[in-house]
Amino acid sequence: MISQILNGSITDVKGFKANGVHCGLKKKKKDLALITSDVPANSAGTFTLNKVKAAPLLISKKIVGEDQKIKAVLVNSGNANACTGEKGYNDALDIQSYCAEKLGLNQNEVLISSTGVIGEYINVAAVKDGVDEIVSSLKDDGGILAAEAILTTDLKNKHFAYKVKLSGGEITLGAICKGSGMIMPNMATMLAFIGTDAEIEKSLLQKLLGNAVDNSFNKISVDGETSTNDMVVLLANGISDIKVETASDDEKIFSDALQKICKDMAIAIIADGEGATKLITINVSNAASSKDADKIARALANSPLVKTAMYGEDANWGRIISSAGSSGANFNPDNVEIYFDDKPVLLSGYRVVINEDDVKTVLSKKEISINIDVNEGSENTTWWTCDYSENYIKINALYRS
Amino acid sequence: MISQILNGSITDVKGFKANGVHCGLKKKKKDLALITSDVPANSAGTFTLNKVKAAPLLISKKIVGEDQKIKAVLVNSGNANACTGEKGYNDALDIQSYCAEKLGLNQNEVLISSTGVIGEYINVAAVKDGVDEIVSSLKDDGGILAAEAILTTDLKNKHFAYKVKLSGGEITLGAICKGSGMIMPNMATMLAFIGTDAEIEKSLLQKLLGNAVDNSFNKISVDGETSTNDMVVLLANGISDIKVETASDDEKIFSDALQKICKDMAIAIIADGEGATKLITINVSNAASSKDADKIARALANSPLVKTAMYGEDANWGRIISSAGSSGANFNPDNVEIYFDDKPVLLSGYRVVINEDDVKTVLSKKEISINIDVNEGSENTTWWTCDYSENYIKINALYRS
Repeated sequence: MISQILNGSITDVKGFKANGVHCGLKKKKKDLALITSDVPANSAGTFTLNKVKAAPLLISKKIVGEDQKIKAVLVNSGNANACTGEKGYNDALDIQSYCAEKLGLNQNEVLISSTGVIGEYINVAAVKDGVDEIVSSLKDDGGILAAEAILTTDLKNKHFAYKVKLSGGEITLGAICKGSGMIMPNMATMLAFIGTDAEIEKSLLQKLLGNAVDNSFNKISVDGETSTNDMVVLLANGISDIKVETASDDEKIFSDALQKICKDMAIAIIADGEGATKLITINVSNAASSKDADKIARALANSPLVKTAMYGEDANWGRIISSAGSSGANFNPDNVEIYFDDKPVLLSGYRVVINEDDVKTVLSKKEISINIDVNEGSENTTWWTCDYSENYIKINALYRS
Repeated sequence: MISQILNGSITDVKGFKANGVHCGLKKKKKDLALITSDVPANSAGTFTLNKVKAAPLLISKKIVGEDQKIKAVLVNSGNANACTGEKGYNDALDIQSYCAEKLGLNQNEVLISSTGVIGEYINVAAVKDGVDEIVSSLKDDGGILAAEAILTTDLKNKHFAYKVKLSGGEITLGAICKGSGMIMPNMATMLAFIGTDAEIEKSLLQKLLGNAVDNSFNKISVDGETSTNDMVVLLANGISDIKVETASDDEKIFSDALQKICKDMAIAIIADGEGATKLITINVSNAASSKDADKIARALANSPLVKTAMYGEDANWGRIISSAGSSGANFNPDNVEIYFDDKPVLLSGYRVVINEDDVKTVLSKKEISINIDVNEGSENTTWWTCDYSENYIKINALYRS
């Protein structure tokens, strides 16, 4: 009932156009993206819980919180417009207003979003020149160009789309996102823009997005840092005339598809984590509570010692159990079992059962699962993280972000 | 009233002897230390809060918790004897019993402690051979040899001693410690052994040690990891016949000296942090509560982005305020002021006042203060951390610890 569109993006969804251009915030690369919906869309969003919030995020959060239809999202990279005070806030309003005018829209039909260096004023004139160019060059298939224009230290474009069969017919979900460093979610993280042509009430849309974000972006960590600019926005323009009703089978199907596309994006962000050489899936099983499961998984996902061991392809289960032990979760260390993929390393009663050859084969792969069974209750969780390499240090020591 | 003894250690304290030898847990370096007190000493201790606790730690914690006088502490490096189950526990008892017998003591007059790789059985025979050697070679000035024998990835010996003038005369405080990675304290951290010839009741001793640890070892972080083997032990043998009475001026003086020696050790651990090139002091001022102050300081001390920026000598205050903002502390970002040493970077209302030359001079130093004033209340705290370099990754990816 859910099928992936090869190389899909938000412009695979009916009524969405997009483009990405270079306006001059970065030296050469694309740095301005615009996404539009031909018809007004209901919106849902999750926004960073960092006390320090960027100006464009405050503006977009306010609009998404109101019963306001959205027709466009303008996103720049190269400058976060965060920690820029009143001037930064007025700059953001100025950019929003200029973009709305060029599109023939009301100001509050346009969401704005920024990512890049914190604490520097944004070059408003450059962005306005970019808006002139991008408004006149929107493309039916421009989603991937938009995905490219929102990247910062990312090495790869991130975009996905799915066809979803509902009782009334087929709808589409499409999305673009970015994220590579300063990644540990708290309600939302990084930037992700998702569109659908399904018709969904605002309150249901927000509920479904919240659930999907909790099980995807809120379970990843590159470095335990929550950014000032994180937002996930979902726009539903209803252009398919297929409605997702509350508490229907369709709600379940749509919700599954939305979780799937959010998970695709979350994993793509981790796989492209700064300096990452491996994608690590952390499965915690049989925890006493879901909070305990998340405490353990989060501790492992943020542990420099676990992440460097994975980089070194070292079956260092001692660091894994030590990290779990200091996570604050309730469990008895004597009962813990640890596997790399399906290869046992530690069984209960501290029985070490490593087969060095088996484990070496697993740890040399690009994608590894750490499976930790705490044998305390029945709650499970899955998180995603990446390893720590010297390149994480280099990227963050030598470049300002 | 407090004066430092040059190159001092625990054996500068009357009645304490020590030595460090090589018994074979490490390839070549010293790996076994013994500290003894000529007369029975009152003890106080703080021990890791990690759920996963090493066998020797469980044994020593139990003894310190009882009203039991101590005459010796045996410490090995090269093997943590953690996550080794019942066999590891019995091995630890066996070693403790053997050492007591060789010293002519009861088993529970001997504390034991281990540090090194987790999850491997300890070579009991090697340790026993080492005990034979070390018992017969204790030295009046062996504290520094003992300090050397407890190191793991540390690059430097860590030992301190102070003369303290009390109303009844002069007493001495001396200590040795180790610690370089897996460092973020929670009640206790790393290994530290402190001796004094003052006479102090057990309950007062424990109270004073708890306070000192809270303001020293509990405010440092290399990598946000709490080990399975962390312990701080303070022995007071009373050999000076000078008593520290509860609620006396002497208590205050002794407490200050104890805090000073603990702070010396905590800072020495951070300065020798794995891969560290800089010692960073984090001063948080005018927080709403002391919890808020600690939340902000801990977040900065653990932030890979702040620590890599310091390594790169980048005045990236955006990462500092973003990290504070996601710490969970209550403050208004608009009022935050940030200084590197005494050089202002950000004033309230997001006024950026960086003088690039001034800041470059500060950040190129080996010791840097990050001062963050949140202008919210009146609580202050100081934490210590180090920068993150490629060497942290190399040390932890390539060597098993």
